[in-house]
Amino acid sequence: MALNNSTFKKIQSIVGAGYCSIKKEDLACYAYDATANRYLPDAVVFPKDAGEISKIIKLANSEEFYVIPRGSGSGMTGGSVAVMGGVVLVMTRLNRIIEIDTDNLIAFAEPGVITAHFHREVEKSGLFYPPDPSSSEFSTLGGNLAECAGGPRAVKYGVTRDYVLGLKVVLPTGEIIETGVKTAKGVVGYDLTRLLIGSEGTLGIITEMTLKLISLPETVRTMTAVFHEVGKAAETVSEIIRRGIVPRTIEFMDRASIICVENYLKLGLPVDAGALLLIEVDGRAEEAESAINRLEELCINLGAREVAIAKTKEEAAVIWKARKAISPALFTYAPDKINEDIVVPRSRIPDMVRRIEEMKNKTGLTIVGFGHAGDGNIHFNIMLDKKNREEVKKAWAVVEELFDYTVELGGTISGEHGIGITKAPYMPKEVGKDEIELMKKLKRLFDPNGILNPGKIFV
Amino acid sequence: MALNNSTFKKIQSIVGAGYCSIKKEDLACYAYDATANRYLPDAVVFPKDAGEISKIIKLANSEEFYVIPRGSGSGMTGGSVAVMGGVVLVMTRLNRIIEIDTDNLIAFAEPGVITAHFHREVEKSGLFYPPDPSSSEFSTLGGNLAECAGGPRAVKYGVTRDYVLGLKVVLPTGEIIETGVKTAKGVVGYDLTRLLIGSEGTLGIITEMTLKLISLPETVRTMTAVFHEVGKAAETVSEIIRRGIVPRTIEFMDRASIICVENYLKLGLPVDAGALLLIEVDGRAEEAESAINRLEELCINLGAREVAIAKTKEEAAVIWKARKAISPALFTYAPDKINEDIVVPRSRIPDMVRRIEEMKNKTGLTIVGFGHAGDGNIHFNIMLDKKNREEVKKAWAVVEELFDYTVELGGTISGEHGIGITKAPYMPKEVGKDEIELMKKLKRLFDPNGILNPGKIFV
Repeated sequence: MALNNSTFKKIQSIVGAGYCSIKKEDLACYAYDATANRYLPDAVVFPKDAGEISKIIKLANSEEFYVIPRGSGSGMTGGSVAVMGGVVLVMTRLNRIIEIDTDNLIAFAEPGVITAHFHREVEKSGLFYPPDPSSSEFSTLGGNLAECAGGPRAVKYGVTRDYVLGLKVVLPTGEIIETGVKTAKGVVGYDLTRLLIGSEGTLGIITEMTLKLISLPETVRTMTAVFHEVGKAAETVSEIIRRGIVPRTIEFMDRASIICVENYLKLGLPVDAGALLLIEVDGRAEEAESAINRLEELCINLGAREVAIAKTKEEAAVIWKARKAISPALFTYAPDKINEDIVVPRSRIPDMVRRIEEMKNKTGLTIVGFGHAGDGNIHFNIMLDKKNREEVKKAWAVVEELFDYTVELGGTISGEHGIGITKAPYMPKEVGKDEIELMKKLKRLFDPNGILNPGKIFV
Repeated sequence: MALNNSTFKKIQSIVGAGYCSIKKEDLACYAYDATANRYLPDAVVFPKDAGEISKIIKLANSEEFYVIPRGSGSGMTGGSVAVMGGVVLVMTRLNRIIEIDTDNLIAFAEPGVITAHFHREVEKSGLFYPPDPSSSEFSTLGGNLAECAGGPRAVKYGVTRDYVLGLKVVLPTGEIIETGVKTAKGVVGYDLTRLLIGSEGTLGIITEMTLKLISLPETVRTMTAVFHEVGKAAETVSEIIRRGIVPRTIEFMDRASIICVENYLKLGLPVDAGALLLIEVDGRAEEAESAINRLEELCINLGAREVAIAKTKEEAAVIWKARKAISPALFTYAPDKINEDIVVPRSRIPDMVRRIEEMKNKTGLTIVGFGHAGDGNIHFNIMLDKKNREEVKKAWAVVEELFDYTVELGGTISGEHGIGITKAPYMPKEVGKDEIELMKKLKRLFDPNGILNPGKIFV
């Protein structure tokens, strides 16, 4: 299904010559995502609206080429790369916040809006859009919806799925449809909205979204709790949840993450600690004050060696700087990484943390653990040099064993990154044959010619 | 597709002769739901588990009969009635709460569990399952999932969809599948869980569910605010939401509801008022206290003529008694009713309330308005005598006009009752042709022989 010259001319006539390219240097810019996998597309196209996208999709069906929707390319599992060639459809021109309706607490936006930009705009009106993937400064809302992104605030506020009321979508057959509602509730017909969310750009191309907003919490309070032992930190997370305290964030860093960030940023982190928890609460000032004090007491009672509540926004910002630096800092350990985002039932975090320790000791590999502990969502990163075949082999054996153990504990192999290409071989560990067959049938129903984002989710 | 004798014998051999019947007197008990539509099934069957259900479904495909899943038959749109005959599959024997996992705040339950029974059981462990349809004392969890039930607490806590993590389901082709996760998050594959929720028993039969629980709020505070004018009450609802106060409930009763309940129960309600709001907040004691005081002040500032905060649980119970009596009390007005559950953007509640007033004055019909105002979800009930053809004709003209106006305001024709049979003719007012075609294709994909709950949602 290579793209011939006459087809490209037709694409040019749809979007205009200035908004598409087949030049190698342009294609190279849209060949990768955060997985570092590279696949050169045949063309890159920048449509301006649903109408143009619909025309391209219809052309793709009649002239047989693949279409791969792409936001900022910050995905962690290869969802937006052109594994089988084709046209990468870059959604960044659809970047308007159409309306922020402060009376009804909803917003209408296009998929190319940068997530953090959207955060700042709604916060100007005293409103709040909770989903906050770590990539929010460059990821797009459309990409967040396609993957059903999470983030630190999911403990209290839930994930992207919980903030989408309705969609405008171009189907893989070219029809432009609308799903869902503009109201707080609605149960008319099948839930196409949530079927599309998290479908990783394989069932349709989102061109507009109706998002639910809530009131911006008056105050945020931030604290850190340092533990000698990683097991104690994990048990503290379970206990916080069990007690019914609902922080908005409970982030976790193991010793390897702490050391790595400290070497990178020199912030004075406790490099001899077993683990660090970053806990944040929000709400009205007196409520947040009361909650943070209860959490301080609880952490100390459960064996934290040191608890510090940030006194100012600046102090809180330093803590977050450390947490957000983990991913880039990791490359000081090794040139490559394998990054997974398993989730286990919260009470099983101590088991999983122990197993990761065991694997580290057994293999001698650098394995770093951090993540959204409040959700049981642990990012384990195996650092390696991809040129070292022995290391690569060992690393994938670790992934395999940790995925098996995740499923054994009643967990899932992806909490927020999706399946894409990197996890596709492992999906059958978690999802049964009949279930996968049903999903494949859904894919064929939506996309009978298989033109939209092929080679993803299913092996 | 009538049920012949040899087929019934095969059903008997699957579930046992004591758990199925073709006797008219038994069939009559399962011929209706809350719509008062009556359709006699050919047989009624009480399976004990997913295995038996799968066998019946396979038999239905090979011997060509319809299967209609049913919980308590409390649905408001005909979702569980056998409009085309067939076997009504009563799920009440699958009524175990399998586990309440207090460490991970999840529960495993079967679909036949009564909702309020489930509430009480999880509350014994200090946990909370928020969805609370008004029928909760007799509705089943399975029915709640099939319709994506809401309820008064949805303002703060969301609807049934938001509390389901995973399902076990018998597909219309007989396979038993599992969907979703047992963890706080998960994005592996397409979201079959939410596609099945709200599909009104047409895409599969739920046989087990994994539900998300939260911590039971320490305190609940209840208040009423009485307004001279219904418009003022509606504007107060909008203002509460705009100010970012999040009550767990904002229920609304118009004058007709107040008078009706007062005549029925003699509670001393203000029968000369234009409208009454029932507002409830929850949380830690001091937080609830502070919120209820802010709401009291706000209601007075916005023109409430009288605000009363319940001092005891007993006082709060009386207020709820009034609210919950509306539906039964309405039959003192007339022998029949048409009950709709439209939702409009919250800021448009005053417009909708005014339009209902206009229709009342224009037609002379008794139209009663109440419902979950915090969500913009208004239940309007037209009281009539179905033997009076003139009245019936006028009433359906009112429904038609109010549905048109709902869609014009950006609303939806069903917030929680679903489409079933009663709203099927109106769905095209809200949902486009391509969208309905896609939904029909989904139905055919799941149920190629059309054996499961036929004649619903689509006309």
